[in-house]
Amino acid sequence: MSFASHDSATKQSQGEAITPEDIAESIAGSGAQATEDVARYALILGDDSLMLAQRLGAWISRAPELEEDIALANIALDLLGHARFLLTYAASAWGKTEDDLAYFRDEEEFRSCRLVEQENGDFGKTIARQLIFSFYAHELYSRLVNSSDATLAAIADKALREVAYHQDHAAQWVLRLGMGTEESARRMQAGIDQLWPLVEELFADVEPVGRLEGVAVAPSSLREPTLDRITEVITDAGLTVAEAPPAYGGDRSGRYSEQRGFILAEMQVLARQHPGATW
Amino acid sequence: MSFASHDSATKQSQGEAITPEDIAESIAGSGAQATEDVARYALILGDDSLMLAQRLGAWISRAPELEEDIALANIALDLLGHARFLLTYAASAWGKTEDDLAYFRDEEEFRSCRLVEQENGDFGKTIARQLIFSFYAHELYSRLVNSSDATLAAIADKALREVAYHQDHAAQWVLRLGMGTEESARRMQAGIDQLWPLVEELFADVEPVGRLEGVAVAPSSLREPTLDRITEVITDAGLTVAEAPPAYGGDRSGRYSEQRGFILAEMQVLARQHPGATW
Repeated sequence: MSFASHDSATKQSQGEAITPEDIAESIAGSGAQATEDVARYALILGDDSLMLAQRLGAWISRAPELEEDIALANIALDLLGHARFLLTYAASAWGKTEDDLAYFRDEEEFRSCRLVEQENGDFGKTIARQLIFSFYAHELYSRLVNSSDATLAAIADKALREVAYHQDHAAQWVLRLGMGTEESARRMQAGIDQLWPLVEELFADVEPVGRLEGVAVAPSSLREPTLDRITEVITDAGLTVAEAPPAYGGDRSGRYSEQRGFILAEMQVLARQHPGATW
Repeated sequence: MSFASHDSATKQSQGEAITPEDIAESIAGSGAQATEDVARYALILGDDSLMLAQRLGAWISRAPELEEDIALANIALDLLGHARFLLTYAASAWGKTEDDLAYFRDEEEFRSCRLVEQENGDFGKTIARQLIFSFYAHELYSRLVNSSDATLAAIADKALREVAYHQDHAAQWVLRLGMGTEESARRMQAGIDQLWPLVEELFADVEPVGRLEGVAVAPSSLREPTLDRITEVITDAGLTVAEAPPAYGGDRSGRYSEQRGFILAEMQVLARQHPGATW
């Protein structure tokens, strides 16, 4: 398998692309701030992307191939972009900025799920995490494009095109490892087995989703199509879906993985030492 | 200062872009493998980019602003791209691959300079390192486009466009920090002072450069224009060029910073545990 190398990561493509700054400006201009509930929903989505971006970033120059380094780093960048959009929009409800939310919330205020906070582990575990999250995210954004909230719909539209690539990337690796050597199949299966207990948390109808009909996508409605598609990939790769009960605890409402503190410690140290970012 | 957000890190721009795979194919097709000397020269350039990419990658989700996270990660990706081109070409001399050279050389076989291997430190130190390296690289590639070696010239042409952005990015931060608060100026100056003793190593005419007239660019010929331009930025920012004697040792020929081992340990562990990358 071969991924085309990126042309230039810093050559900015403008055109139809919206940016977090566009969102911020358009909100400021139109007065269309997020409501409290929409903001809390946007945080759930944004925190997942932010945490996973942080985890994936650690693969730069550490993947098994230089080409794969670039692929994982590009995915991390995409996710960071999604997080910026969602946090910028959420922040508008409280007169804050994306940076306030990323760097100055405490551990218990984040709403990310445990799956994205898991340590990278070996490459098999990282790919298992990518498989689960990217298929979930693709299903999510493919529905959220129809949100009655125009800002969420626009963010979903942008994210969807990128997540479609993340999905292909993960699926191709699962197939490659599952159908590779005995050892590669064993490790891929171990990654799936280890993370499977965390899958259900993605599909829990947490607050404030119940109050956002037509605006948010109910996580529970994503469960069947997402798991069907993931199962198909796993089966095609000659692997099996883990039969494991959901892990205890963890519901995006205060109970979270012990890894979160470590991620935030690294992520927030500089901004907190030097608020305002210009020292 | 604001950098346009990237559109999509994974939306591949094709067109005129050459990729490391193109280089590999074209070399295989034409039989235009690098000679031993050209390969050794390409390694000097490629190892610098590889090491700096690894260092910069650590900033993902840790910069003082989310927007800056993305900028630094994009620069890391560009550098990783340059490293892939240069290592792919070097590898052709020995019937190897870029991954062989990145993951299976030992510590003393790398030829990177100490500047790029330095720890990130605070943001001021990282920006000082970016200032020095990007201005050096821009001067280098702007000459290497005229190399009589067509492959090196093509790589330089691609890298030059990206390094021009890296240069602007670094210069704008130096100005912003130098003319910001007392604390930001103090930290920016501290970064410059700390790294300045490592500057001379960039301009040493190491082997095999002397045997590659018209092919390689003599590092010593880059010294004056590079330092003039760096000095101008530093002065414009209200800061001063450090008056520090060059650090002892370090000449790209076997004496290197103690940090190299730590970088390689992280970078190489996965590939070495699982040679062949598919386990």
